[in-house]
Amino acid sequence: MDALTSQHTTPIRANTPWRLAVLAQAVGAILKGNPDTTITGAAPLDQASAGDIAFLSNPKYAVYLRDTRASAVIVTAATHLAWDNPRGIACLIADNPYAMYARVAGCLYREPLPSPGIHPTAVVAASAQIAQDAVIGAHVVIGERAIIGERAVIHPQSVIGDDVLIGADACIYPRVVIYPRCVIGERTILHSGAVIGADGFGFAFDQGQWIKIPQIGRVVIGNDVEIGANTTIDRGALGDTLINNDVKIDNLVQLGHNCTVGEHTAIVGCAGIAGSVAIGKNCRIGGAAMIGGHLSIADGTTVAAATPVFSSIEKPDVYTGVYPIQQHQHWQKNAVHLKKLDTLYKRVRALEQSLSDVQSKAQCLNGQKTKGE
Amino acid sequence: MDALTSQHTTPIRANTPWRLAVLAQAVGAILKGNPDTTITGAAPLDQASAGDIAFLSNPKYAVYLRDTRASAVIVTAATHLAWDNPRGIACLIADNPYAMYARVAGCLYREPLPSPGIHPTAVVAASAQIAQDAVIGAHVVIGERAIIGERAVIHPQSVIGDDVLIGADACIYPRVVIYPRCVIGERTILHSGAVIGADGFGFAFDQGQWIKIPQIGRVVIGNDVEIGANTTIDRGALGDTLINNDVKIDNLVQLGHNCTVGEHTAIVGCAGIAGSVAIGKNCRIGGAAMIGGHLSIADGTTVAAATPVFSSIEKPDVYTGVYPIQQHQHWQKNAVHLKKLDTLYKRVRALEQSLSDVQSKAQCLNGQKTKGE
Amino acid sequence: MDALTSQHTTPIRANTPWRLAVLAQAVGAILKGNPDTTITGAAPLDQASAGDIAFLSNPKYAVYLRDTRASAVIVTAATHLAWDNPRGIACLIADNPYAMYARVAGCLYREPLPSPGIHPTAVVAASAQIAQDAVIGAHVVIGERAIIGERAVIHPQSVIGDDVLIGADACIYPRVVIYPRCVIGERTILHSGAVIGADGFGFAFDQGQWIKIPQIGRVVIGNDVEIGANTTIDRGALGDTLINNDVKIDNLVQLGHNCTVGEHTAIVGCAGIAGSVAIGKNCRIGGAAMIGGHLSIADGTTVAAATPVFSSIEKPDVYTGVYPIQQHQHWQKNAVHLKKLDTLYKRVRALEQSLSDVQSKAQCLNGQKTKGE
Repeated sequence: MDALTSQHTTPIRANTPWRLAVLAQAVGAILKGNPDTTITGAAPLDQASAGDIAFLSNPKYAVYLRDTRASAVIVTAATHLAWDNPRGIACLIADNPYAMYARVAGCLYREPLPSPGIHPTAVVAASAQIAQDAVIGAHVVIGERAIIGERAVIHPQSVIGDDVLIGADACIYPRVVIYPRCVIGERTILHSGAVIGADGFGFAFDQGQWIKIPQIGRVVIGNDVEIGANTTIDRGALGDTLINNDVKIDNLVQLGHNCTVGEHTAIVGCAGIAGSVAIGKNCRIGGAAMIGGHLSIADGTTVAAATPVFSSIEKPDVYTGVYPIQQHQHWQKNAVHLKKLDTLYKRVRALEQSLSDVQSKAQCLNGQKTKGE
Repeated sequence: MDALTSQHTTPIRANTPWRLAVLAQAVGAILKGNPDTTITGAAPLDQASAGDIAFLSNPKYAVYLRDTRASAVIVTAATHLAWDNPRGIACLIADNPYAMYARVAGCLYREPLPSPGIHPTAVVAASAQIAQDAVIGAHVVIGERAIIGERAVIHPQSVIGDDVLIGADACIYPRVVIYPRCVIGERTILHSGAVIGADGFGFAFDQGQWIKIPQIGRVVIGNDVEIGANTTIDRGALGDTLINNDVKIDNLVQLGHNCTVGEHTAIVGCAGIAGSVAIGKNCRIGGAAMIGGHLSIADGTTVAAATPVFSSIEKPDVYTGVYPIQQHQHWQKNAVHLKKLDTLYKRVRALEQSLSDVQSKAQCLNGQKTKGE
Repeated sequence: MDALTSQHTTPIRANTPWRLAVLAQAVGAILKGNPDTTITGAAPLDQASAGDIAFLSNPKYAVYLRDTRASAVIVTAATHLAWDNPRGIACLIADNPYAMYARVAGCLYREPLPSPGIHPTAVVAASAQIAQDAVIGAHVVIGERAIIGERAVIHPQSVIGDDVLIGADACIYPRVVIYPRCVIGERTILHSGAVIGADGFGFAFDQGQWIKIPQIGRVVIGNDVEIGANTTIDRGALGDTLINNDVKIDNLVQLGHNCTVGEHTAIVGCAGIAGSVAIGKNCRIGGAAMIGGHLSIADGTTVAAATPVFSSIEKPDVYTGVYPIQQHQHWQKNAVHLKKLDTLYKRVRALEQSLSDVQSKAQCLNGQKTKGE
């Protein structure tokens, strides 16, 4: 397979050409240079060709500015000032060129939308309300009284339960399941395989067996949220599980029942959040991190990747708890001592005491000696 | 989205009103108070209204007893004795009020069942046997010779392989896949996205490439088991993977080929169990715990969350292996030393030796001195 | 459920009987014994019956050689020499009997293939090209311009996006999703629930909110790859995510955008690989291991299970970073000290200094004393 022999870059091709002045206004950037420059795509500085817009965020790539064939570049004001720019390449000025690139790319590139309408193989309950310009894909199943908002796209094979509410412009990728009564906000994206609203893990152990606690709350997801592939978010037991606006959750994340996640928080792949956890706003939960049940995490906290959290965090900071990696034979030696760290600690304490005794005696002896002299 | 502004509680609404005496008998609780009390739902103590039954399990919520508007409360005998109960609220007496609440809620609340029958879009092999009162949802695919038991519900989009056996009253949520020849017990629940019976990870490395070992065993799941969303349980290589009765497995758990899990064991979300692991009865495997291949875990063992297990556990106890969390800059300092713990250990041992030498000499010197005096 | 009372072994039954000489030639083994032996299946040494071929890999099972009823056994040359073999059981000689068993079992056992053709409930775009002998299962959805190779099997409910390319003899199990433009190599196997090509987790944080970075690269998967159930592999942002030939990935693994995985590398279940990671050839990434973003891992590296990796690995070796498991009360004591390991280190350093001072003084004192004598 030739495709595997080299890393292939796909430049962004704009659906229609943009006049740079219009693009600058759309994204809120200051334009320096020819406002009539035509932009037809976006690509990295070193791979851009005529018509492309590129960006410079990391100073170590500044070397590419000289030879880039891009028609426009997104740079900071400082870079713009320092650059002699002999060929007069147009610039968009931004404090954060990477974020500005994201805005620009979002303007240029739109996933092609399927045509509105309900695919003939979809099974839609008679009592469901589907906005006229929504898209319901092949083999989708939509339950009783579900409401699908304007321009929402439900891709093939997804299952939308009874009484589910899906906001305008939401995008539900193929093979998502949303259990009954859950709510999905506007412009929210759910990737394939996500399961929203399965029962929380709630059982009471009694007389030698498990008794299931009915899980009858909902999952309520706000606007502009993105949920990754095969991520699972459980419904609340009695209350709801709440994912606030602009939360971003990666693939294969587990969120237990009755959790709340504050606005703008990001949770990276493979993280596991137990039940009834309250994660604040603007947190960053690293990949494969784990948060135990009934804890709360202060606004603005960062939990490093692979870090398990077993007590609430009240002071925002960066928290880490990761065993450092080593060559196996070194790890083996250290791990043996780690299992006896308490003993080592006591040996150090005993040493300190003994040494102190020796010093006292030596002092005393020395004193005697001095006296004796 | 207003729903996000406050935590919303969904009280349990009974499908039909219950006379308290009948409910008490159904769940095996002692009734104190008016047997004719009508129960129409369940809610937390502080949110209950007339007709609701509430429970008091955690003593810190006892303060809510005074003002609750519940018509009945589940309490321990001790709480019942200590409570003056001026309004004469009816009580159900139980040793474990939370478990009793689970039983009560399970009586009051039943998921509405779809009507029996096979949806016209389902694709059912001619040789499959579907019980007359089973429910086969939209777009379900059922393979040759599969047997679906009485009152079993196969929700939309699930794929049931050839020769699969599904017991009576089982509930297969949307979009589950069961590979050929697997067995699902009675009353067992599989949540959306679960994959039962995919090939185990079995390869032999030979002459520079992987040779696949055919995986032809089954997954056999007992009665009253619950399997979470997007959990994967691999089929055995030659033998079977066995999940015994009343095992509860949370979301996003991986169970490798040829594992056995004993009765009443619970495995919390994101746990990973490698191949050929034998987990005993009544174990608790914490979230994101990991168990290496070919190990056995004694009955009654608890493995803490996020704990990796690399050797068999023969003595039931609580086992933990988790790096404690810290602010990142403290972690950095400690982690450096952890990587050299063996060196630190040797320095302590050397100190002990040196100090011992010093003490001997001091003793000796002191002796000389004393002699000299 | 009787099936649960004992471990059930499923012997491999050959689709047709094999003459041993033909089988030996097919797998490249040396045959010792009767070339006309008929082989009709494979089973473990102690459970084999007439017609079965067994293997001896682990010397501790050599005891089973004496009484086995197998018609042929795969052994090393050394075992063959040492075995008196009174009943003259035919032998296949191999350096690695387990790998040879894998080859033999792969010859004997073939999953029964569904009949070629497109199921009437499948929804196939008019512009898609389906090889005439491919199998397209019930309710499959295939997008515009997708190409499905010869003898490829797309099991029920899978969703194949626009412009996807699937190689000859690929096997896509039920309910896989492949996003648009991704490439799947020949003989590659994707298990149920796998999601190939969802958007990478790419956002820029700007002015208090997340801006999505368009993810327009592809996932390109080579030949002879196997991907486990519910595993997720994200598409590249601009470049591609590349999985090279003969890579084996287990269940519930997350691979971020723009990763590359070299040939013959195996990644065990629950591992999480962040974005832009370059994993070399012939690596072994253990279960629940985690690799941080933008790192590279040298060819031939082994990362132990549950080990988090936060810096690139340049020298191939076995690397481990796992907190050793202990009974909880011992762990508690040790963990307290671990959080203060830097302090303990400093106390040891101070002790060394103090002891050195004491020794100097003692030396000095001793000198004085000696002088004074």
